[in-house]
Amino acid sequence: MRVYMDNAATTRVDEEVLEVMLPFLGERYGNPSSMHAMGIDAKTVVGDAREKVAKLLGADEKEIIFTGSGTESDNLAIFGYCRKNKSKGNHIITTKVEHHAVLDSFERLKKEGFEVTLLDVDRDGLIDLEELKRAITDNTIFASIIYANNEIGTVQPIAEAAKICKEKGVVLHTDACQATNYLEMDVTKIGADLITINGSKIYGPKGIGVLYKKRDIMIEPIIYGGGQEFGIRSGTENVANIVGFAKALDMALNHRDEESIRVGKLRDKLISGLLNLPESRLNGTHEKRLPNNANISFLNLEGESLLLYMNELGIYASTGSACSSDSLEPSHVIIALGLPHELGHSSIRFSLGKDTTESDIDYVLKEVPPIVEKLRKMSPLHKTMEEAIAAGVDKDFKH
Amino acid sequence: MRVYMDNAATTRVDEEVLEVMLPFLGERYGNPSSMHAMGIDAKTVVGDAREKVAKLLGADEKEIIFTGSGTESDNLAIFGYCRKNKSKGNHIITTKVEHHAVLDSFERLKKEGFEVTLLDVDRDGLIDLEELKRAITDNTIFASIIYANNEIGTVQPIAEAAKICKEKGVVLHTDACQATNYLEMDVTKIGADLITINGSKIYGPKGIGVLYKKRDIMIEPIIYGGGQEFGIRSGTENVANIVGFAKALDMALNHRDEESIRVGKLRDKLISGLLNLPESRLNGTHEKRLPNNANISFLNLEGESLLLYMNELGIYASTGSACSSDSLEPSHVIIALGLPHELGHSSIRFSLGKDTTESDIDYVLKEVPPIVEKLRKMSPLHKTMEEAIAAGVDKDFKH
Repeated sequence: MRVYMDNAATTRVDEEVLEVMLPFLGERYGNPSSMHAMGIDAKTVVGDAREKVAKLLGADEKEIIFTGSGTESDNLAIFGYCRKNKSKGNHIITTKVEHHAVLDSFERLKKEGFEVTLLDVDRDGLIDLEELKRAITDNTIFASIIYANNEIGTVQPIAEAAKICKEKGVVLHTDACQATNYLEMDVTKIGADLITINGSKIYGPKGIGVLYKKRDIMIEPIIYGGGQEFGIRSGTENVANIVGFAKALDMALNHRDEESIRVGKLRDKLISGLLNLPESRLNGTHEKRLPNNANISFLNLEGESLLLYMNELGIYASTGSACSSDSLEPSHVIIALGLPHELGHSSIRFSLGKDTTESDIDYVLKEVPPIVEKLRKMSPLHKTMEEAIAAGVDKDFKH
Repeated sequence: MRVYMDNAATTRVDEEVLEVMLPFLGERYGNPSSMHAMGIDAKTVVGDAREKVAKLLGADEKEIIFTGSGTESDNLAIFGYCRKNKSKGNHIITTKVEHHAVLDSFERLKKEGFEVTLLDVDRDGLIDLEELKRAITDNTIFASIIYANNEIGTVQPIAEAAKICKEKGVVLHTDACQATNYLEMDVTKIGADLITINGSKIYGPKGIGVLYKKRDIMIEPIIYGGGQEFGIRSGTENVANIVGFAKALDMALNHRDEESIRVGKLRDKLISGLLNLPESRLNGTHEKRLPNNANISFLNLEGESLLLYMNELGIYASTGSACSSDSLEPSHVIIALGLPHELGHSSIRFSLGKDTTESDIDYVLKEVPPIVEKLRKMSPLHKTMEEAIAAGVDKDFKH
């Protein structure tokens, strides 16, 4: 039995996606910049893919920039806008629950003279729009707010945030990597000026991202050279991955509505089953949440140990985000909820996907509870959830 | 008949390379950062690929950084070193015949307060090591010298340049994208501190590069986030492309010696055949030249027209470098040779590869001369080569 519940870390490449990619890993290998039949073929398919992506997002094709990853798109949006527009002001805003691609880029910008405000989230994992309003000063030029969180799946009020930013003349970027499969992706409805999408989270290949950039927003490159992608992202176009990305996005958006309902039901069954365990807790709001995310803390055990036992049973999930699993730090997202380290260390992210079936859920609900019990018997800690949370708020919740 | 002579722009993905990639575009899709069997599998194969690449280059595996392209590797070397080590000095050196990934990064660094010296090349396309020595001041921290030129295939004395730089405490980067298939790639013999390699030039996939970084050289990232690649290049590892790169490099280096001889002979036949045409000229030295490159100017015609006629006959080549074919500027490399614009505009790059056969050469030598004659009949210009060059040196050669 193999139950892959780590779709927030990466998804498999859909067979239909691979199928459209293969010709470009085979005979149709031209460089889009070459002035001969094979180059023109490559240039045409890249153009077609761009047009397709633009249409799917309700954007113009000149607003679609292909990059090498979601991380690169985040970096390009943040560095690209802030460095280019430094003269307009040096105050920038983000949240405490961003992906490291955003947080670490903001850290870097601090060294370049920017002042950074990190918005808090409440216990549910949501930002406060009034706090956003109050944070904006005459000196604020840019904000980055994650659309749906990669660890706990909470969905921020991005369209409302976009309205506030627009009124105050602040450019808004949103990391929509986790949102793409399940949420509104029409750029005019999202309202952000810059939007990051990642191929490897939507059943496309690794090594491809998109940055949507509203036409009148000026950014500078982070990678210079041959001037590909309207001069904003140099390097020979990854034709196969670009074609694959367009197909993956097409499939994701076309199946979004029914898939959100289907996966949401499975997630709810998983959540209620796991919450039957004592001293367990859903991290982040249930209501404003991605339909594929269940992030649950099992107090009085180590999440990593639980993960390893689950692994032996073929259940694949994550602690925190996969992108920082090398680190021993508890998840910065769980901490931002005002929860104690213990809950961070005992949290597991189950991220469902289009292959997830009801029997997968049944298998998890049958196998995980006995492991949780076993691990708790071995644990020196035996707090109740109330005790843990009470201690956490006082000791660990740093605003 | 299809004769692909644009291998300097991009190469096809070798079937054996694609074969090792496919499992990672299929069932083995884990994220190397995930702590379960599929993540561990992905992490292991990335580690194995890194070890293989390191061994092939005579390097340590901690010295191998996977990036998204050759262009990104160039940028990472240049920005990464210069920004990190700004306090040591603000003078940096490169040549007039670099790829735009290098030239444009240097241009950008000028805006960040660096002073740039551009080394000349002689009529053969080679730098003068004495000029390099003279250019280095107490304030010089970094130099970037292309190993083999992408347009004219000339091979710079990189090991000697490395010795000079080392003596003077200057860190040296070299763009080895075009060199990899044919020249010495042992990093200890090259002697540079930072070396760029590109997957798509060595029969690997597009969207993968390597930066070799000598262990004691400190650089900072251009892309921040999850901390992959020793914290130097964030973003989920492109497992399929990394595995494919390692295979492609293995094949390239293992077949290098016999392939250099085989391709070199074909190139020589091509060059002497085309130089039989009146008012034609080989750009760059014949002696210190990649065995797969023939860059020839056919005076009194437009290179782009010739390219289009050749395209109709299934002969695929380039004017200048593919990466800047959108631009109407004549090649900066041809201009750097001290040749006039006319020779830049009439130059064609034939870049041979492992699929090139003798009958390909025969086909080109049969089909191209009549097109050249035809185009010249239509041209308003009828200079001799001597007249053109004499005019060029005075008017266009800007030192």
